[in-house]
Amino acid sequence: MADLPIREQLRDQKTYEAPQLPAPVRLNTNESPFPPTQALIEEIAESVRIAIHSLHRYPDRAANALRAELARYLTHQTRVPVATENVWAANGSLESLQHLMQAFGGPGRSALSFAPSYSMYKVIAATAGVEWLEDSRSADFSLDIDRAVATIGDVRPDIVLVTNPHNPSGHPVTSADLERILTAAPAIVVVDEAYAEFSSSPSAISLIDRFPAKLVVTRTMSKALAFAGGRLGYLVAAPAVVEATRSVCLPYHLSIVTQAAALAALRHADQILARVPPLISERERVTASLRRSGLEVIDSEANFLLFGRFADTASAWQHYLDHGVLIRDFGISHFLRTSIGQPAENDRFLEATEALLSGSSFRRFCLGVGVAEPG
Amino acid sequence: MADLPIREQLRDQKTYEAPQLPAPVRLNTNESPFPPTQALIEEIAESVRIAIHSLHRYPDRAANALRAELARYLTHQTRVPVATENVWAANGSLESLQHLMQAFGGPGRSALSFAPSYSMYKVIAATAGVEWLEDSRSADFSLDIDRAVATIGDVRPDIVLVTNPHNPSGHPVTSADLERILTAAPAIVVVDEAYAEFSSSPSAISLIDRFPAKLVVTRTMSKALAFAGGRLGYLVAAPAVVEATRSVCLPYHLSIVTQAAALAALRHADQILARVPPLISERERVTASLRRSGLEVIDSEANFLLFGRFADTASAWQHYLDHGVLIRDFGISHFLRTSIGQPAENDRFLEATEALLSGSSFRRFCLGVGVAEPG
Repeated sequence: MADLPIREQLRDQKTYEAPQLPAPVRLNTNESPFPPTQALIEEIAESVRIAIHSLHRYPDRAANALRAELARYLTHQTRVPVATENVWAANGSLESLQHLMQAFGGPGRSALSFAPSYSMYKVIAATAGVEWLEDSRSADFSLDIDRAVATIGDVRPDIVLVTNPHNPSGHPVTSADLERILTAAPAIVVVDEAYAEFSSSPSAISLIDRFPAKLVVTRTMSKALAFAGGRLGYLVAAPAVVEATRSVCLPYHLSIVTQAAALAALRHADQILARVPPLISERERVTASLRRSGLEVIDSEANFLLFGRFADTASAWQHYLDHGVLIRDFGISHFLRTSIGQPAENDRFLEATEALLSGSSFRRFCLGVGVAEPG
Repeated sequence: MADLPIREQLRDQKTYEAPQLPAPVRLNTNESPFPPTQALIEEIAESVRIAIHSLHRYPDRAANALRAELARYLTHQTRVPVATENVWAANGSLESLQHLMQAFGGPGRSALSFAPSYSMYKVIAATAGVEWLEDSRSADFSLDIDRAVATIGDVRPDIVLVTNPHNPSGHPVTSADLERILTAAPAIVVVDEAYAEFSSSPSAISLIDRFPAKLVVTRTMSKALAFAGGRLGYLVAAPAVVEATRSVCLPYHLSIVTQAAALAALRHADQILARVPPLISERERVTASLRRSGLEVIDSEANFLLFGRFADTASAWQHYLDHGVLIRDFGISHFLRTSIGQPAENDRFLEATEALLSGSSFRRFCLGVGVAEPG
């Protein structure tokens, strides 16, 4: 690699690091723990089987049927009227974010986020040549709105990125705080709602009418809609923003197979989303259990928990893996993140936690802050 | 759009313009005219059906099984040994090109191509912030190699783009000429072999060993492999170039559905490629027929023909569409491009051509150059 004429600013860029390990319990990438039902598998396969009769032809470049179905889904899920022209779909919401970075960012422009945040934001900005700016969240990972608004006023970023609920903490941002950010921001504000279906907070989509030239909401079918393998993300915005996005979008970016599979899944959104309340119950159960064990857990409105505090997160992460449970270490001091799995998976995670906290391990792994000595 | 904070250099960027019109005969985007056989449809649908059992999980980020199958395919098709580490796949070869523009181009760097050329090259360069440079091909659309080498020496582009066979003319580039370009180029040379399976010229893949830090070959399953709807392109290069590409590639960019469908199609590559010789025969038949009609046709090693000369390409294009045949007008003076379809589609195209050349239309549409007066 050293001999290659790769761009200087990318020379030290790592590929996305979440290890894909064959652990029995995988709670590291916030996937849905529920495989598709046999009925859904057959419906998707049939939808694909019909679509591939025209496999030799390019797909509908505008993905109109899929975008109409996404608009219908959003109108139902958020109670805000959304039309086809408000939606642009992509191969995952990261591709949507890349479209936004390319259309509204680029060389000489800047993007601001509030750290810690999803690691790919920074990578996508670097790839698009956007200057990356980071302000800090509060010590408890919540957004310090006064500080955020002041920073936006100071640095005047071309793109502000807010994750709601926040990843990796699960903190929600209130609509009132979002409005302050939208009012302060000079240009585009991207609200990443990847985990919105797990949250009781209202969607920022309701604010698009008031901030049509600023607000873009990105979403994904990867999480609550249990479609991570199908790669379907999308953005919701005023029609002119959608049009601007199309100018940087590669033609025929969504295959007929992707469009057909996503359409079939969306037609069963109600059944798939029926898995969300049980996951929320599990999230609350795991939160309570971790706290009873003396650990600190950030209140989460998503399908994951940030918890600690660990003296050495790398060793603690390895301890979980040794117990067959793959979770996530972001390099955030003292905290690890676990996704919420099926009840048996969460039990296994909690057992690994108990083993970690028991006996000699305790001193090796855990900090005193917020941690009760085990009995 | 005028009120949006879109990047200045993209403000006038058009979205890809090939119209998607419901014409009875569509010869405008060089697709295969052969739909998948029922047996292939069932195989692909079954491959997808099995894969989507894990639809709730992210796909293999490295797409190892698919890349291994692509390497096997290339080894067989080009007679050059290709390994999994030499291949990186994407949602169409345009995404591969975007990866290359992002990794080896970017702000402050330049890309050179030889016009006329595929319109998306320039758009992808602009989106990646790469300065776009164009030299001209010869009047007959062949590559003037002496001029090309001189220009490369003058402008020292970071990326040189060569299409082989050339689109939209179908001209091949010889290996000797490619070697001269590779020797002259200071950095990356991308050889776009989207139509290689239709050409009797050797693949540039055989040159990767000699130019490992320079040469990248891009290919696609969209054309000869009749998989345009499935969106699968790839690049072939030295392993270090593949690694560099991964640093700008979005994680999980290829869905499990895409990977499963492409794998199934590749397992039947021999049957699908059996359609190529009949298409080549049709290409020769259409070429001869057009020439008999007095039109000029560029010798093509691809599945399309560039032909003329027309006084007004827009009117001639509309004439074909009025006759139910959708072909392509790139805005190249006096020439239009038609894809080679099934025999009946080509007959319809030739009938429309006869109508165009007959009677009063002739004077309206055609130039004298190279065109015999109809009898």
